[in-house]
Amino acid sequence: MPVPKALVFDVFGTVVDWRGSIIREARRIGRSKAVSADWAAFADAWHAGYRPALDRVRRGELPWTKLDGLHRMILDELLLKFRLRLSEREKRDLNFVWHRLAPWPDAVRGLTRLKRHYCIGTLSNGNVAILVDMARHARLPWDCIISAELFQHYKPDPEVYRGAADLLGLAPREVMLVAAHKYDLAAARKCGLKTAFVRRPLEHGPGSQSDIADDPRCTFNADDFIDLARQMRA
Amino acid sequence: MPVPKALVFDVFGTVVDWRGSIIREARRIGRSKAVSADWAAFADAWHAGYRPALDRVRRGELPWTKLDGLHRMILDELLLKFRLRLSEREKRDLNFVWHRLAPWPDAVRGLTRLKRHYCIGTLSNGNVAILVDMARHARLPWDCIISAELFQHYKPDPEVYRGAADLLGLAPREVMLVAAHKYDLAAARKCGLKTAFVRRPLEHGPGSQSDIADDPRCTFNADDFIDLARQMRA
Repeated sequence: MPVPKALVFDVFGTVVDWRGSIIREARRIGRSKAVSADWAAFADAWHAGYRPALDRVRRGELPWTKLDGLHRMILDELLLKFRLRLSEREKRDLNFVWHRLAPWPDAVRGLTRLKRHYCIGTLSNGNVAILVDMARHARLPWDCIISAELFQHYKPDPEVYRGAADLLGLAPREVMLVAAHKYDLAAARKCGLKTAFVRRPLEHGPGSQSDIADDPRCTFNADDFIDLARQMRA
Repeated sequence: MPVPKALVFDVFGTVVDWRGSIIREARRIGRSKAVSADWAAFADAWHAGYRPALDRVRRGELPWTKLDGLHRMILDELLLKFRLRLSEREKRDLNFVWHRLAPWPDAVRGLTRLKRHYCIGTLSNGNVAILVDMARHARLPWDCIISAELFQHYKPDPEVYRGAADLLGLAPREVMLVAAHKYDLAAARKCGLKTAFVRRPLEHGPGSQSDIADDPRCTFNADDFIDLARQMRA
């Protein structure tokens, strides 16, 4: 089996636990403002606004907008709904929670092993600043930060997957997308990339229904990044 | 003095010793082909072709071309001039010497210190693949790879400096260019970036005339990256 030269990773949900991180920060702010609410529902609602917002950009209904900007649009509505009154400075700070999400427990160790044998980079809808800040915060050892922002197209637009291979100076088949989401992997495969599915059963919280069944169209199916490193002999 | 949040580095000459690396590889190939030549002159001629080639792109005489492509155009002429006959595979390999240049002796240690306090990235005319391969080869601990390729403009076009600040989510004054070349620093300052001049007296070889005088318009003037880290309290 020919091995890829570079591995690019979906980030939100695949590398970092957006839900747990947002619940923690929202709960802390809620306490400081004496507002009680279901902060897990807050996190889920913020995330639920993500795909529709991206799709508005993808359909051309919104001009190109960095993910920071889309997150803020969704947040502003949520703050009303959850009756959380914040200053502009506090809003900006909360919006930047996406810059300091915590990695899954296996992420740093798995990436460090994979990096010894393969070039590793992000391939995320997060804008560059989110991904750079997150990498510094969580000590993610990326060789490079590749973002939808560089192509002004959001995944699953093909420009993102093809653009990543082009930037790396590689043919699509020499690049493998690692992701916990099958729609992302399917779009990458259509562009000729190899794919690896990583199960993240806790992405949507304990007891939730994440799709964690093996995907036979993927080159690898792994329980986490350490399992992927083991399967790839890294 | 307000400190910058991110430091972006010119690479060829500032972080890595292109001349020494190219002389070594060209000499090795020359020996294997029983061709003797002045390999220092070969390295200097390759480098001398760089600015005119970039300028042809900048003036629109050439469409956007990655630096790998410009390097190859220059190399093809040099191989004739130096009577070095190579196979296509050998040519491609030699052209990729720019992907495996050796860092100056202080570079990794200085960058590692600076990274503890500041976000550090490249800001180079090298295309992304050159910079990623070089970072892996030389263990340069970049937080992000920013390349002229991302803007389809070569330095000193203002799009590159402004684009870097925008990708980092920072105002230009929050970003500092570190470079050994004053034209590059001057162009960055025009765009509002802070600047640090680093002396690299050996860039053009021992006994050469590199401009190493302090630049009073720069926020810092440093002997190397360790001196810069010291001055910046990193």
